Amino acid sequence: MTSIVLLGFGNVSFNLIKTLANSSKINVLQVYNRSEIYLGKAFGHIAFTTNLLKIKEADLYIIAIPDDSIASFSESLPFKNKLVVHTSGSVSMDALSDKNRKGVFYPLQTFSKNKEAIFTSIPICIEAAAVNDLKILISLGKSISEKVVEIDSKERSKLHLAAVFVNNFVNHLYAIGDQILNSNKLPFDLLQPLIEETASKIKTLTPSQAQTGPARRGDQKTIEKHLHLLQEGSLSDLYKQLTKSITNTKNTDY
Amino acid sequence: MTSIVLLGFGNVSFNLIKTLANSSKINVLQVYNRSEIYLGKAFGHIAFTTNLLKIKEADLYIIAIPDDSIASFSESLPFKNKLVVHTSGSVSMDALSDKNRKGVFYPLQTFSKNKEAIFTSIPICIEAAAVNDLKILISLGKSISEKVVEIDSKERSKLHLAAVFVNNFVNHLYAIGDQILNSNKLPFDLLQPLIEETASKIKTLTPSQAQTGPARRGDQKTIEKHLHLLQEGSLSDLYKQLTKSITNTKNTDY
Repeated sequence: MTSIVLLGFGNVSFNLIKTLANSSKINVLQVYNRSEIYLGKAFGHIAFTTNLLKIKEADLYIIAIPDDSIASFSESLPFKNKLVVHTSGSVSMDALSDKNRKGVFYPLQTFSKNKEAIFTSIPICIEAAAVNDLKILISLGKSISEKVVEIDSKERSKLHLAAVFVNNFVNHLYAIGDQILNSNKLPFDLLQPLIEETASKIKTLTPSQAQTGPARRGDQKTIEKHLHLLQEGSLSDLYKQLTKSITNTKNTDY
Repeated sequence: MTSIVLLGFGNVSFNLIKTLANSSKINVLQVYNRSEIYLGKAFGHIAFTTNLLKIKEADLYIIAIPDDSIASFSESLPFKNKLVVHTSGSVSMDALSDKNRKGVFYPLQTFSKNKEAIFTSIPICIEAAAVNDLKILISLGKSISEKVVEIDSKERSKLHLAAVFVNNFVNHLYAIGDQILNSNKLPFDLLQPLIEETASKIKTLTPSQAQTGPARRGDQKTIEKHLHLLQEGSLSDLYKQLTKSITNTKNTDY
């Protein structure tokens, strides 16, 4: 039984606690957060503190706080030689303080508190400075997910960059679609089946194979029509940049 | 029973035939294509011709060919006063020849021949010049989909523009994610759960509510890290443009 203390109570932490608390191999001992929070009925048995000095003794400490604060927070922990990991995609393992054993436990997913994440299919990206700690993290990962992969800080930074493209930037394109429909009094749900199918297609085709549309075809007439509809402005600039990027890729990789 | 002739045999036509042939209210009489094609075993009972003069008499003719060719092709049809529709998102109804009755039957989805489309949830966007023809198209739409909407050519062009953002452009961002992972020897399927969740999230949240990431947070440190990873080049330009677009939206619409 691995005993764990969660440090921080954001979206990642909330979902991690929920899934870890359900594992028979894991004992979520305590949650620390710098401000008071309500853990919720389901977590009633888990201790909570806002006091760093009252953090309990555990096998593993998981820091799940904003990226910028990880380094200084790990330095402020009042214990030594324990296994301390963070859950960030973009922060190097070395950002953690040297006074404890270091690792990373990065679940590659977008989390929110109002939608429970199913961890079984979420890739857990693991890194540790010591082999024994790596084993602990792999075992922890396997207790909640079928996909545990060892990935170093350099690879993880690339993975996180790719995730920004397929998640944050993709969602922004959804927002633009919403905006275009909205300003024409058309309901956004008209686009839902298309959005789902676009995401689903790349399970069986590579994104390059799945690429369609005016830019891919070099259909200048439709591109001109669209730019006319967008008029001059930031959306028009973005349309041009994406079209250019597809055209360039076409010549080399498609 | 509505009798239909399909003109063209691309991805849209292929999937339309497949679903229409299964409807008890529809009789797919014939498929025309300018070159010989193999209709497939499932369509063995449907007549086929490459000769415009041998097109059969039917209640409805559905043109499903490349956008650029719709106008001239509809002009070349050797009959008059029939209901002729096209299936394009970006071509105006008026592009069709005046010698026949005009309409549009636009299924808002991305189609391919190797993946059968389920029409039930696909929005069918209908337009017709005459009320009676509109009724025929609505009835046809309802025989294959639960979502039939009347949308004029101007609205449809906006819808198609939005579709380019959430489908073609989104898929290109998937391709970029693939490329970043590939060049670091990481498998693309690491991103699949994130891609699915991103598409799924906006069923319960608006895209604006679902927006996360460095640009949304104004996390300049992570943005700089990413630009450093991308170095100078077209991907870096695209990253900047998307980040700028999210930042601008943030100030006004989020």
